[in-house]
Amino acid sequence: MPELRKCPITERWIILATERSKRPGDFSASTPDDTDSSKCPLCEGKEDGTPPEVLAWRKPNTLPNTPGWDVRVVPNKFPALISNGEVNRSGVGLFDMMTGIGAHEVIIESPSHNTLLADMEIPQIEKVLWAYKQRITTLEADPRFRYVLVFKNQGIPAGASLTHPHSQLIATPITPRYVKLELQNSCTYYREKERCIFCDLMRQELSAGDRLVYENDFFVAFTPFASRFPFELWILPRRHHAHFREATDEEHKQLALCLKDVLSRLKKVLKNSPYNYVLHTAPNPVPRAGKPSYWGTLAYDFHWHIEIIPRLTKVAGFEWGSGLYINPMPPEQAAKYLREA
Amino acid sequence: MPELRKCPITERWIILATERSKRPGDFSASTPDDTDSSKCPLCEGKEDGTPPEVLAWRKPNTLPNTPGWDVRVVPNKFPALISNGEVNRSGVGLFDMMTGIGAHEVIIESPSHNTLLADMEIPQIEKVLWAYKQRITTLEADPRFRYVLVFKNQGIPAGASLTHPHSQLIATPITPRYVKLELQNSCTYYREKERCIFCDLMRQELSAGDRLVYENDFFVAFTPFASRFPFELWILPRRHHAHFREATDEEHKQLALCLKDVLSRLKKVLKNSPYNYVLHTAPNPVPRAGKPSYWGTLAYDFHWHIEIIPRLTKVAGFEWGSGLYINPMPPEQAAKYLREA
Repeated sequence: MPELRKCPITERWIILATERSKRPGDFSASTPDDTDSSKCPLCEGKEDGTPPEVLAWRKPNTLPNTPGWDVRVVPNKFPALISNGEVNRSGVGLFDMMTGIGAHEVIIESPSHNTLLADMEIPQIEKVLWAYKQRITTLEADPRFRYVLVFKNQGIPAGASLTHPHSQLIATPITPRYVKLELQNSCTYYREKERCIFCDLMRQELSAGDRLVYENDFFVAFTPFASRFPFELWILPRRHHAHFREATDEEHKQLALCLKDVLSRLKKVLKNSPYNYVLHTAPNPVPRAGKPSYWGTLAYDFHWHIEIIPRLTKVAGFEWGSGLYINPMPPEQAAKYLREA
Repeated sequence: MPELRKCPITERWIILATERSKRPGDFSASTPDDTDSSKCPLCEGKEDGTPPEVLAWRKPNTLPNTPGWDVRVVPNKFPALISNGEVNRSGVGLFDMMTGIGAHEVIIESPSHNTLLADMEIPQIEKVLWAYKQRITTLEADPRFRYVLVFKNQGIPAGASLTHPHSQLIATPITPRYVKLELQNSCTYYREKERCIFCDLMRQELSAGDRLVYENDFFVAFTPFASRFPFELWILPRRHHAHFREATDEEHKQLALCLKDVLSRLKKVLKNSPYNYVLHTAPNPVPRAGKPSYWGTLAYDFHWHIEIIPRLTKVAGFEWGSGLYINPMPPEQAAKYLREA
């Protein structure tokens, strides 16, 4: 059974993913090339190669776990956290631990094996966003979970183990530390100024203009001033709201347009480089004894957004030791390359 | 000129390393294979291929920047931070920035091209540790610098760009966030308990025993309870002291024995996998107006140590979004493999 463990010095939690355990020699084994789709378990027609689906956008009169879907969500076959059981907390001397209860799901973004998200039609991307929203809404109702993190690993160097276009989500029984950090700071700012720090940031980026890459009536995409990585990109909704699941159908459509635009620009400028993206949304409003949780209360000052990280540079000893990132590409320059693409 | 920039939402500083700037297409270029030493600028006899040395362990009667050295320290040819100039701080709306003043040096661990640190003789490793200590002592006297971070990237996937055995150091004009985090927590613990959290942790590891890998009279090496990565290893001195530069010659010798032992075990079990290690030491005791700086004052509750991170798993979207690490290898199992090697 997986475990969560906490380091008392850095306050970092880790997930000991025993369902994914390996022997020492297995780590160096390279990921198999599956550009040949014949063995891909995520393709249409291979529905029995995955655990039974938990959600799908299906054509009328098709049965679950059969062909006829546009987007399909299934539990991860090798989950980092498992969904059966209770969250049991315990301490061992200095250490804290918890049973590894959660959810780990795969959002299959298309029935076809080789289409990149950047190349999909807008309605298809909207269906992917619909699936994110549905699954977040369902999972955040589970009182065991504190957060639902949606992310995408595009390309083997970015951590993908399958070529077939897919995103993932992991629901965790704790609020992750980076989420806490952003929440805590946006809450402090709001208390002090009665304004959202993300709204202020967006206003500054719109007025400076030199880091802007894309904007429409609902979304703004820019390379952040303190980009950790070359060509890092943030997408923010203009409307201040904390939860991604509050986004309307119109916002989904405009986000699909924005996402397709910036991913296509990245693809063109960086020649199909691997990337990760992460949906930053507010934590689950888990009620405890009828009241929202501490982190759930802070949520109202948050502003959901998406962070895209192209994987061009290596994280090395300096970054592991300092938490400081060395970025050789000024974001103003990166934005210029992307605007001109 | 390089710049430091701060994200107001996450409080992360980044280094915009303009001296290392690239065009978009250059990121994908693979690192050249330099197992052939003929073009290596770090080899003995190629002293004019590097900036002039700032320190060397030399045979008697040899001149600087000529052959005859055992360990040699030179400025990095493509530094992330530069040492000429003043630290100028400024704000731009929401953002904070600073001129990119610092030091970035390369510690060449051996005159010979293909020797791994794990395979060096003990006296040679002692000379490397001597170089760390000398450079930290010199650089921390510079009032512009808040911290000196020593690290090693072993192998291309771990971020090394040269095969020749070397470590690096970067002196920064800010206290890095991970250093602050460890300091803040060890200080809080000390205030509450009148004990060092690292000393307590070490006692618990020694008494549990299942994560222990190596011990001698001066040092203990173990796989931490909340290991972020498979085969992560920490080396702690038994004696509570904050600054690595306070280590005695005897401690250097015992640390060399410990380092060689655990690196050899890792090499054997993981078949020469890439790794990073980072020296965690207390920040510079920079006096300001005759008083130690805030972080310098906290330093006394710190306990210096070395963290070794084998690079076996990929950091992907989930880790970037959460700060939570998924580790498929229980540290108890990893320690067993290493003890038996």
